[in-house]
Amino acid sequence: MNNNYPFSIVERDAVYKAIFERRDVRGEFLPDEIPAEVLARVLNAAHHAPSVGFMQPWDFMVIRSKAVRQNIHKLFTKAHAEAAEMFEEEKRETYRNLKLEGILESPLNLVITCDRSRTGPVVIGRTHMEWMDLYSSVCAVQNLWLAARSEGVGVGWVSIMDPDALTKTLALPENVVPIAYLCVGYVSQFHEKPELEKAGWLPRVPLEDLVHFDQWGEHNAACDQDLQLLDKVNKLSSDS
Amino acid sequence: MNNNYPFSIVERDAVYKAIFERRDVRGEFLPDEIPAEVLARVLNAAHHAPSVGFMQPWDFMVIRSKAVRQNIHKLFTKAHAEAAEMFEEEKRETYRNLKLEGILESPLNLVITCDRSRTGPVVIGRTHMEWMDLYSSVCAVQNLWLAARSEGVGVGWVSIMDPDALTKTLALPENVVPIAYLCVGYVSQFHEKPELEKAGWLPRVPLEDLVHFDQWGEHNAACDQDLQLLDKVNKLSSDS
Repeated sequence: MNNNYPFSIVERDAVYKAIFERRDVRGEFLPDEIPAEVLARVLNAAHHAPSVGFMQPWDFMVIRSKAVRQNIHKLFTKAHAEAAEMFEEEKRETYRNLKLEGILESPLNLVITCDRSRTGPVVIGRTHMEWMDLYSSVCAVQNLWLAARSEGVGVGWVSIMDPDALTKTLALPENVVPIAYLCVGYVSQFHEKPELEKAGWLPRVPLEDLVHFDQWGEHNAACDQDLQLLDKVNKLSSDS
Repeated sequence: MNNNYPFSIVERDAVYKAIFERRDVRGEFLPDEIPAEVLARVLNAAHHAPSVGFMQPWDFMVIRSKAVRQNIHKLFTKAHAEAAEMFEEEKRETYRNLKLEGILESPLNLVITCDRSRTGPVVIGRTHMEWMDLYSSVCAVQNLWLAARSEGVGVGWVSIMDPDALTKTLALPENVVPIAYLCVGYVSQFHEKPELEKAGWLPRVPLEDLVHFDQWGEHNAACDQDLQLLDKVNKLSSDS
């Protein structure tokens, strides 16, 4: 049997629902424990991400320890204060008042890493773009994020930390780099829109402004297919 | 009403189905045109990826032009020949015989890029990890890939090209980098497993080997929750 079918409408809509209702969670974590089978499923989803040359360069650190999380939280606090100074004065107070992590309130932290030397020095698909293994681990993050949303579990990615200090605090070996530091847990709510959009920090870019035809900067349709695509893209933009 | 629910079992299973049945497609593209509304939906899915500081750094180049695709194919051919020389002799012939792209056979190529200067010099969450915008664009790739699978559309990521030559061929502005060169189209079949796994190039790593508890290298459970997680992880590994 040829396995080349689209999903049923119900299944397809569920995939889009996960994509549209996924949120970066910071302030809504509940302390409730995540059942082992739920956690195992979302880790398995991450493990089934695409990887360059089937390298599977990721590892998953499950961090429950309060002591480890307090050390990580200190890294965040330091970097967050430094970051505030980088913004222009008019945005600085807004930045300071944003809730940007849930390291200690979430029941669990997860680190997704990339082992740059896994499977040896020559990897299919990485011979000319050596960063492709990093991108594979990022795909694992996104798989985990979407799977978690379908389980009702929130995920927040914390990137406001000095990366070298993070590597040192986690005692990662030389060939392993941290890709994502994630706070994970059930939530009181998933926001309807991204918080920075809701707060007026930045608007969503209209999709049609991001579509180019055949060459960079060409936003005008060159054929009927392009015209139809623009029409559909415009409809989706105005619906959302 | 609190929007904090898990999906129904049917919906949740559909998300996992997209994750497990997504494939990197190279040799199975059909020439059939992708309807505008399907293409618009998968681009919109990409546009709803998480992005650092709500930066939305991605653009989408829709490439139908045979001439552009022939130029890109030349870049692949050159890099592919160079790559073959990098493998040890015993793997070289296997490598040469692998089908690794569908640039000309697929009805459509898509480029997802990252505009490194979008929204200005200081971006929330990117102050200490300046590569976070690249990772946001990778999340857009993964969203598109999963949405496409649910539509019955295959996607193949081609990374065997000199990145500078790719940037030049696409005439990208200085601040824009290519993240993913994708071949897109309906397929005769989605393989049951990744092709490199099927071909015996590399096996899937058991998930339990990739899980660490609280510190790097600690694969033993420290508490009942860890024990239960390991048990569930082992069950998932032996099922797949």
